Amino acid sequence: MTVAAVLTVDVLTLFPGMISGYMAESMLGKAVERGLLSVDVRNLRDWAHNKWNITDDRPFGGGAGMVMKPEPLAAAIDELKQKRSTVIYLTPDGEPLTSPLAKELSQQQHLILVSGHYEGIDQRIRDTRIDREISIGDYILTNGTLPAAVLIDAVARFIPGVLGEEKSLTQDSFQRNLLGFPQYTRPVEFEGRGVPEVLLSGNHAAIEQWREEQRIAKTKQRRPDLIDQPDPET
Amino acid sequence: MTVAAVLTVDVLTLFPGMISGYMAESMLGKAVERGLLSVDVRNLRDWAHNKWNITDDRPFGGGAGMVMKPEPLAAAIDELKQKRSTVIYLTPDGEPLTSPLAKELSQQQHLILVSGHYEGIDQRIRDTRIDREISIGDYILTNGTLPAAVLIDAVARFIPGVLGEEKSLTQDSFQRNLLGFPQYTRPVEFEGRGVPEVLLSGNHAAIEQWREEQRIAKTKQRRPDLIDQPDPET
Repeated sequence: MTVAAVLTVDVLTLFPGMISGYMAESMLGKAVERGLLSVDVRNLRDWAHNKWNITDDRPFGGGAGMVMKPEPLAAAIDELKQKRSTVIYLTPDGEPLTSPLAKELSQQQHLILVSGHYEGIDQRIRDTRIDREISIGDYILTNGTLPAAVLIDAVARFIPGVLGEEKSLTQDSFQRNLLGFPQYTRPVEFEGRGVPEVLLSGNHAAIEQWREEQRIAKTKQRRPDLIDQPDPET
Repeated sequence: MTVAAVLTVDVLTLFPGMISGYMAESMLGKAVERGLLSVDVRNLRDWAHNKWNITDDRPFGGGAGMVMKPEPLAAAIDELKQKRSTVIYLTPDGEPLTSPLAKELSQQQHLILVSGHYEGIDQRIRDTRIDREISIGDYILTNGTLPAAVLIDAVARFIPGVLGEEKSLTQDSFQRNLLGFPQYTRPVEFEGRGVPEVLLSGNHAAIEQWREEQRIAKTKQRRPDLIDQPDPET
């Protein structure tokens, strides 16, 4: 199963069933079958060696919600960790996930993704076991399992062979800090609406230029913040 | 099932199995059971009334990948659409999902979430059927089904009752444009590391002040961009 796997990922979560369906049906499932990627979803409860398999408790200092206890997380991470592992905690106060970051992670050997729940995990685990804290966006989710799946998907696309040869990555949104261009397919006329003539012209230089103009115009209109960023050259 | 549901969500996707596990195991599953939310995951292929149930085709103008055809999407959206529906296309070139946007969507009656695949959907659907285009982050995924689940999760938290009474939303990351504070739970000592004394003091005003200081310090260090934004007052 893991023969020739470029990247191995362990997901630590209290809810493994949340992403098993995703793994099975998505392009990632095929990538795993083809040995391009290895993903294991682990139930954190297997490391809760206390009397009641407790994995969370009330926060010190009071406040709503529960905090994930340090011991099961430490035991799980310590057991899964290999020589070259990067331990990542998915949290809304982490570094924002971007395409360049996803590409960087795709070149690692082993990722351990820690999915928080409730009010997150004990700070001492963040201080002692976590190498990177990553956020998938500026919003809050009920737990970190979905963000772990998002991270794996974003990263896997950069692993050679995962997308198949038909797909180049060079025209995607965020390449050169630009959003994507409008796409059209058959029929040529749909509800009285045609396709931009240039796309039917066969003139590849003109098509290229039109698409570039569309990308620039859309980015200026929707995401001027992207244009000001340094080109990540991904 | 839909009795007293505050919000109804239809997800249109080519891969319904990708998020069924998520729906079943997450807090959303319980919210659906309790009638606080209604989510239906629809297979777009059911609206592909052509000879071979084809839902995508090559892009006009050339280039890699496939584009989702307009007819099945139009048929599906037109059938699902009600008087007060908001049709949302999940796309990396959309408006970024934020907590204020999630809160706003939680007050809608009906959302139709369109999940793209491959190179996205025909632009004429975006021009004629889509009310809002939303991005969950500045990275690319293999398809829009996972983003639909992320959006539902972020939105559902704002529906009264979904999180249960134990949880207030006021101290989450992004409330008042600040990240969260460090959390600690038992044991008081873990691997020789203690808990900040103030949290054990029982002095609620001092705890409150420490947490606020921690939030400000972390936000300044990690996300100075947030501080410059107007307070969304969510």
